Amino acid sequence: MMFDIQQKTKYTLQSIQQTVTVTFNYEIHFTNNIFSLKNPTLAQAIASDGEKKPKKIVALVDAGLLEFWPDLLAQITNYAKFYAEVITLTAEPMLIPGGEVAKNEPKLLEQIHQLIEAAGICRHSYLLGIGGGAVLDLVGYAAAIAHRGVRLIRIPTTVLAQNDSGIGVKNGINAFGKKNFLGTFAPPYAVINDLDFLTTLCDRDWRSGIAEAVKVALIKDAHFFDFIHTHTTALAQRDMDIMQQLIYRCAQLHLEHIAKAGDPFEMGSSRPLDFGHWAAHKLEQLTDYRLRHGEAVAIGIALDSTYSYLLGMLSHKEWQKILKTLAGLGFTLYVPELAEQSSPENTRCVFRGLTEFREHLGGELTLTLLQRIGKRIEVHEVDLSLYKQAISLLRDFEQQQTLVTMNRGER
Amino acid sequence: MMFDIQQKTKYTLQSIQQTVTVTFNYEIHFTNNIFSLKNPTLAQAIASDGEKKPKKIVALVDAGLLEFWPDLLAQITNYAKFYAEVITLTAEPMLIPGGEVAKNEPKLLEQIHQLIEAAGICRHSYLLGIGGGAVLDLVGYAAAIAHRGVRLIRIPTTVLAQNDSGIGVKNGINAFGKKNFLGTFAPPYAVINDLDFLTTLCDRDWRSGIAEAVKVALIKDAHFFDFIHTHTTALAQRDMDIMQQLIYRCAQLHLEHIAKAGDPFEMGSSRPLDFGHWAAHKLEQLTDYRLRHGEAVAIGIALDSTYSYLLGMLSHKEWQKILKTLAGLGFTLYVPELAEQSSPENTRCVFRGLTEFREHLGGELTLTLLQRIGKRIEVHEVDLSLYKQAISLLRDFEQQQTLVTMNRGER
Repeated sequence: MMFDIQQKTKYTLQSIQQTVTVTFNYEIHFTNNIFSLKNPTLAQAIASDGEKKPKKIVALVDAGLLEFWPDLLAQITNYAKFYAEVITLTAEPMLIPGGEVAKNEPKLLEQIHQLIEAAGICRHSYLLGIGGGAVLDLVGYAAAIAHRGVRLIRIPTTVLAQNDSGIGVKNGINAFGKKNFLGTFAPPYAVINDLDFLTTLCDRDWRSGIAEAVKVALIKDAHFFDFIHTHTTALAQRDMDIMQQLIYRCAQLHLEHIAKAGDPFEMGSSRPLDFGHWAAHKLEQLTDYRLRHGEAVAIGIALDSTYSYLLGMLSHKEWQKILKTLAGLGFTLYVPELAEQSSPENTRCVFRGLTEFREHLGGELTLTLLQRIGKRIEVHEVDLSLYKQAISLLRDFEQQQTLVTMNRGER
Repeated sequence: MMFDIQQKTKYTLQSIQQTVTVTFNYEIHFTNNIFSLKNPTLAQAIASDGEKKPKKIVALVDAGLLEFWPDLLAQITNYAKFYAEVITLTAEPMLIPGGEVAKNEPKLLEQIHQLIEAAGICRHSYLLGIGGGAVLDLVGYAAAIAHRGVRLIRIPTTVLAQNDSGIGVKNGINAFGKKNFLGTFAPPYAVINDLDFLTTLCDRDWRSGIAEAVKVALIKDAHFFDFIHTHTTALAQRDMDIMQQLIYRCAQLHLEHIAKAGDPFEMGSSRPLDFGHWAAHKLEQLTDYRLRHGEAVAIGIALDSTYSYLLGMLSHKEWQKILKTLAGLGFTLYVPELAEQSSPENTRCVFRGLTEFREHLGGELTLTLLQRIGKRIEVHEVDLSLYKQAISLLRDFEQQQTLVTMNRGER
């Protein structure tokens, strides 16, 4: 025999073990006034590819932005003209409805692909996604599957997108009534966080993004949690300097986790960054998305922290510090949907979220809890009666908060 | 400032450089009689994940196989019953029409996703794709985007799929009339090549897969090309032992390239494995897929080898050896569509394939040619008049072949 095939055995020739290692590099920039002609950040990010210029670019813009940034489309066009040596806009910017609707409407995906085709976007061209997490999830998915991946520069415009969803390696849209049923892992080409966009967020969106910072602080960095705790009021009052620091550190922790925790494409069953998320995902669904993702995450964090306390891991003091920080930021920690506890087989039962969480991740149920602030622990079984008790404690806490604020005349 | 944010400068805070490295491992097995109850290869591949058993599995089967393997579906069911400790089929196997139609019908993608949803397939469950390259491309794409990637075991049933498309990291479907407009890079969980499936291939499919072996031999391994050249007649006469060796070595070379050439997910513009493919893709399209992929690749190889000869790189002897090997395998090296040479702006012009090739890869035109047999070289410009001459030479060669075989009374 010429090659290293062994003698014909009945069933087996020597198998080949294949190992494929892929490295992705991308930079997260922090800037202001991104489309000012004096701000070269975006042009430099594209120029840095070292290829022949100008590059074809198409912008996909969260329609919700135009209310507060009416000149945005004109600014993008002007910017491209000014940096014409680097950038050619080969189509008009496309507007995409903001919020979860972006991920629920399959037609939008098709329209983006039509645009990519018509604008001659190739694997060395760029999509520019500008908007909140949902719009970036859709645009990221569209980019990832066109020509097996065209380059995407994300310009996240919400706190949540700037410190979490917009800087990571995931994208997705909803299908069959399931969140992110379709999606891929696909690192962006670059991310540019423009803090100016945060100034026009409504209070709910400003606050929502802070939930993911609390989450990552609780599982990874007690020092960072103290920072948030100390600046609760400043954050609630929209102090931009503190917010900048919060976003920066939160982004850093998320990026470190993706790069160093050993499973960036989540092939295993462990997903510590989803602390508090099993309940959050379920509550978003049960409330028909009346709750924003961050608001649901705040409740999920409060619930899993309370459960950690009941398990004897968190001290009473730590537990209260967590709830008070979340409440101080303005989060409501109880919604009536938490009372839907019929049985985990019932799709309306909040505990059904545990099953759905396991199914989405695949494999064994793996839940992240808190051993103490800044230190996580994984469990594979839960005690539903203890979880019901945790929900009662949250209801009591929230009632007391309401009383306190009523007495203060704040509500 | 608490964190390493520099003093607020006008536009720039310190950016964060992110590096994400992902490693994929998968094994390519070679076997016979894969669904024999005595053959544990498939069950072992699933058992090797070290997770709780049994695992949910759904099979997606190339409908074309049933003509020659009428018991295939029953065999799959029996196999799952026999290995019930490892495997649970959570849905009936789904039949998928074979050939390019699988990649042209968007409804099929939707149906596979419905099946994944209904069968409760998660990221730790398995899809079993059984069929030719087109079916595996569709199934691979469906698997890659469901839940951001469910596990896929590929069971390629054609020469082409066993030595090339079915063992690599790509998938895709056609859209907007463009081949593989939608797709991803997604390594399989495992590949199992069952040589028995090759016994029932029609001669055209048997032959087609050999074209990719000739291709990879020409650009990487002169010794392997000599092997093919020596066994031209045996291969044409369907010698299974020689075919086994050809598939094994061809798979090995492809896998080595993916693993070691530094760009498994093709982020650059260089794609040496696409030697001969610019014309091949265009000819498939111009002939409305009358040509099979491998038949078109054989012409593309002949064309680019002839062009390499005209450029003074290949010797006359080497050039003739290549053409005679291809012809000896039974390939036709000229089709009338090669004469469509109006202008590269015309979509019917064969040279338009160069533009489309560049656009699909992105960036600069990068064409692989032959410096000698076994040694490739990349060029970024082409001389169309020389290419026209190459086409003439191919027409002459083919006419002569026809005369020779007519004189022998073979046609």
